[in-house]
Amino acid sequence: MNREKAIVLLSGGLDSATCLYKAKGQGYEPVALSFNYGQRHKAELQAAKRLAAHLGIEHQIISVDLRKIGGSALTAEIAVPKGGEHLTQEGSIPVTYVPVRNLIFLSLAYALAESAAAAAIYIGVNAIDYSGYPDCRPDFIESFARTAALASKSGREGHGADIVTPLISLSKAEIAAEAVRLGVPVALTWSCYDPQPSGPNLVPCRNCDACILRRDGFMAAGLALSPEEIYGSPTERA
Amino acid sequence: MNREKAIVLLSGGLDSATCLYKAKGQGYEPVALSFNYGQRHKAELQAAKRLAAHLGIEHQIISVDLRKIGGSALTAEIAVPKGGEHLTQEGSIPVTYVPVRNLIFLSLAYALAESAAAAAIYIGVNAIDYSGYPDCRPDFIESFARTAALASKSGREGHGADIVTPLISLSKAEIAAEAVRLGVPVALTWSCYDPQPSGPNLVPCRNCDACILRRDGFMAAGLALSPEEIYGSPTERA
Repeated sequence: MNREKAIVLLSGGLDSATCLYKAKGQGYEPVALSFNYGQRHKAELQAAKRLAAHLGIEHQIISVDLRKIGGSALTAEIAVPKGGEHLTQEGSIPVTYVPVRNLIFLSLAYALAESAAAAAIYIGVNAIDYSGYPDCRPDFIESFARTAALASKSGREGHGADIVTPLISLSKAEIAAEAVRLGVPVALTWSCYDPQPSGPNLVPCRNCDACILRRDGFMAAGLALSPEEIYGSPTERA
Repeated sequence: MNREKAIVLLSGGLDSATCLYKAKGQGYEPVALSFNYGQRHKAELQAAKRLAAHLGIEHQIISVDLRKIGGSALTAEIAVPKGGEHLTQEGSIPVTYVPVRNLIFLSLAYALAESAAAAAIYIGVNAIDYSGYPDCRPDFIESFARTAALASKSGREGHGADIVTPLISLSKAEIAAEAVRLGVPVALTWSCYDPQPSGPNLVPCRNCDACILRRDGFMAAGLALSPEEIYGSPTERA
């Protein structure tokens, strides 16, 4: 029996990996989609590759050079916040914000979905723990779905891809619990914004916002995991 | 006096060049934005470069690899329609359609606009002569503006870039007349989908949909122009 395809945006982090297993669990044939967008380090892209290889699924990597756009600590030489300082600033937009990144990524995903005749696009946005990002909120996602349908042949014909956000209203602890429940190999994922060199490898810093949120999620879920599961395994230096 | 910036999507064609002069005429400091998206030929990118150089304005070129997406005669090995055959098919979507291309391009333009604090984005979409493209219609543009505002810091703060479509309801003849009225150096533009080699150069085929529409536009406007103005000057082979 042929399963319907779903494009899954796979950054290599815990959330997108959980989405991937969710799409699979919901009966889709997942096609992983990652972006080489000029991120300062390639550790998350390596994690995406090892996750797709682990599942034995198709993995597309699209290059889009967001360095020309600038304005973010993830692509330009702006310091990544450490020690959880940002996390205390309720409602502010973090310096790791890349202007309209999810709008760009979802647009590219929609194009691939149309070309591959995929029925759905899974994206692991989350409006709870990291609501500083405007393009992670439900009103944006709903508006995007309407816009993309108008932009596309498939949408105008009434069979555009659905945008699925299974994690949007989960806490980080709930995502951590869901990941473990679905059998996500969490040690293969990567979350850290500020990888540290360690011999031939990069290891998570354990101190940036992303590392702290992830650790706190596993702790709040009461999961006894190894340090590599909590923070992610080393990747090779590019 | 500092003028406000406007990002102008500049493909190098007649319509986008007219938009560029329109933005300038409306008092903006234009920043041209082109995409290196895996188009089969680079003639239009060369035309964009010579237009920006002619005006002496900033020109950003962002690379985004749409070849991975496929499904279009503009990026994949699908034959470009010739002799105006397509033009007789009312309401159909042409094979030169790249899935949600304007959604992708506008998303990247919006990111650049936010990063450069530009007040407007000019895009030369046109819903009249080439209405086969779903992402050239007013309902898409309006929906995009709402979505991008929700996706962005600037939009959430109430000062997101406006999306300006000065050509959307003009016929090709009206665009041709407007281009000449505004002093657009039309011989520097490039429209042809199927450039032909000619010694070290590429020359317009004069027979694809884009060449035919352009020629008919100038003819309907009653403008007596040289062949290089009507079809565009040769560009160098890449």
